[in-house]
Amino acid sequence: MKKFVNDPKDFVAEMLEGLALANPDTLRYVPEYNLIMRADAPQEAKVSIVQGSGSGHEPAHVMSVGKGMLDAACPGDVFAAPPADFVYETVKRVASPKGVLLLVNNYTGDRMAFEMAEELAQADGIEARTLFIDDDVSVEDSTYTVGRRGVAGNFFVMKAVGAAAERGADLDEVHRIGTKVNSVARTMGMALTACTPPAKGSPLFELPADEVEMGVGIHGEPGRRREKLRQAKDMVKDLVTAVVEDLPFASGDRVALMVNGLGGTPIGELYLVYGLAHKQLADLGIQVHRSYVGEYCTSLDMAGVSVTLVRLDDELIDLFGAPAEIPIRVF
Amino acid sequence: MKKFVNDPKDFVAEMLEGLALANPDTLRYVPEYNLIMRADAPQEAKVSIVQGSGSGHEPAHVMSVGKGMLDAACPGDVFAAPPADFVYETVKRVASPKGVLLLVNNYTGDRMAFEMAEELAQADGIEARTLFIDDDVSVEDSTYTVGRRGVAGNFFVMKAVGAAAERGADLDEVHRIGTKVNSVARTMGMALTACTPPAKGSPLFELPADEVEMGVGIHGEPGRRREKLRQAKDMVKDLVTAVVEDLPFASGDRVALMVNGLGGTPIGELYLVYGLAHKQLADLGIQVHRSYVGEYCTSLDMAGVSVTLVRLDDELIDLFGAPAEIPIRVF
Repeated sequence: MKKFVNDPKDFVAEMLEGLALANPDTLRYVPEYNLIMRADAPQEAKVSIVQGSGSGHEPAHVMSVGKGMLDAACPGDVFAAPPADFVYETVKRVASPKGVLLLVNNYTGDRMAFEMAEELAQADGIEARTLFIDDDVSVEDSTYTVGRRGVAGNFFVMKAVGAAAERGADLDEVHRIGTKVNSVARTMGMALTACTPPAKGSPLFELPADEVEMGVGIHGEPGRRREKLRQAKDMVKDLVTAVVEDLPFASGDRVALMVNGLGGTPIGELYLVYGLAHKQLADLGIQVHRSYVGEYCTSLDMAGVSVTLVRLDDELIDLFGAPAEIPIRVF
Repeated sequence: MKKFVNDPKDFVAEMLEGLALANPDTLRYVPEYNLIMRADAPQEAKVSIVQGSGSGHEPAHVMSVGKGMLDAACPGDVFAAPPADFVYETVKRVASPKGVLLLVNNYTGDRMAFEMAEELAQADGIEARTLFIDDDVSVEDSTYTVGRRGVAGNFFVMKAVGAAAERGADLDEVHRIGTKVNSVARTMGMALTACTPPAKGSPLFELPADEVEMGVGIHGEPGRRREKLRQAKDMVKDLVTAVVEDLPFASGDRVALMVNGLGGTPIGELYLVYGLAHKQLADLGIQVHRSYVGEYCTSLDMAGVSVTLVRLDDELIDLFGAPAEIPIRVF
């Protein structure tokens, strides 16, 4: 295993410590619960937004904590749901009089942790509500889910509810917006290589040198099929087609298009994929109104991409364009 | 080779086309010269800033074109200097009455192309001046250089001269600032794996499973030494020590600290490295005033990192904090 790690069991804690050290003015780190929170949370005048998940998907979600996005994230270990008490302790620390919205990608372990935390928080008199994200079109039930998986589309849910909360929307309204985004967001990914969890020290699954996994999950779960490696244009065409046909997206739609890297694919390749996807959508009469190219929801060092489309309307265009201040910056 | 490519000889053109499609309002793409320029360039009231280099280092430099950074970038093929006429045609298109500053990482091929373009532009009456960047401490002369190599520290030069130019500084002043940044920026990198150029289709060099290349160049050139893979803390300590001792940085210094991923290393590991470097600097009494964690100057899909330190003063803190609008965004 060739990684920048010390003792693999300290990987998550050391990553979070680095994140906190890099953002001393804006983030607070509570090691006992893998908790990264806004230094100024809770804000009394806004709904607080919390997301947990396994680690290994960075920048989701710990690097998405900041003004206009999440108030807190409390990841579990690599690819493991956070324990319920991590979520409960997080909710208590960021609870606002306007309530707390819990965002959960739809995996069984995460659902259980968040539903338990929601109950515990409600018993304390905290108005907490949970919203499940399930944007992955590749499979219905899967290794770790009943129903569809939540993947990179979660970025758009975070962004929209974060913006709405910042503007003072109440919990019902924030929940409505998040539900709406999830209902018009669709994603499919594919892997060129497996990923290697630090504690395992070897690739999570076997993928021959000439094969790819179409519809891979963000924990390396199987997708729709194994197939031979082909030229980018052929593989991207299949990804985009699967996403378009699912909602379905149609001629005249305005969309946000995200090409998300899974961790090991360089940004030059992501822009090449973006160009192919953009032109395919244009041929279908689907207008890309906002573009997102980079890493948003990864699978450790997996080489691969996912393509997300979100059908836009004026409300979502407004929310997606709102300012946000999160740790990841490039200038 | 597992990459998102079509015909490998089209890789750069297809990447640039994707970049242009993703940024239709702000960027203009001139395919004949691999030219990505601000749609609103030239701006008469400011010095224009141009950088070329080989491709394969993205987001350097084509994804750094925008307000407050570069006016244009004209890369060559992967790891190949742009032909002189690419640079010359670029300079003509963005030439402003206030002049053009050409930024060049110190590689022999790039120097030749830019010096020739500078002469051609001057013969046309364009006030063009070249600034060489050589922040890499790992080796003196190298495979492709006389003198030191220019690597991730070029980001800080771009940012500072871009900010100064945007504020209306003249060519002398912009050149002074860029020279100053280069004089206080130091970088060293290391590779865990080799990179694979699309046209080659196989790794550029051999690196055994238990070895790393300390001081690697951004084209996979040899560094100081091969050594056994160790824990992150031991490898990072050596990187930081080499950078600190070179300037040297000293107790009481305020610095910008960049942990730059070389393309295949996930951001979770970059933050772990950041935390180790930050604490080592704190132990030396060196205060990190600004942090940069992510990919700034890559080597295709190479797994590895570089560490850059820049000694700050009030002028540089002001310039680094200026706004910029470039393609890479996360919200």
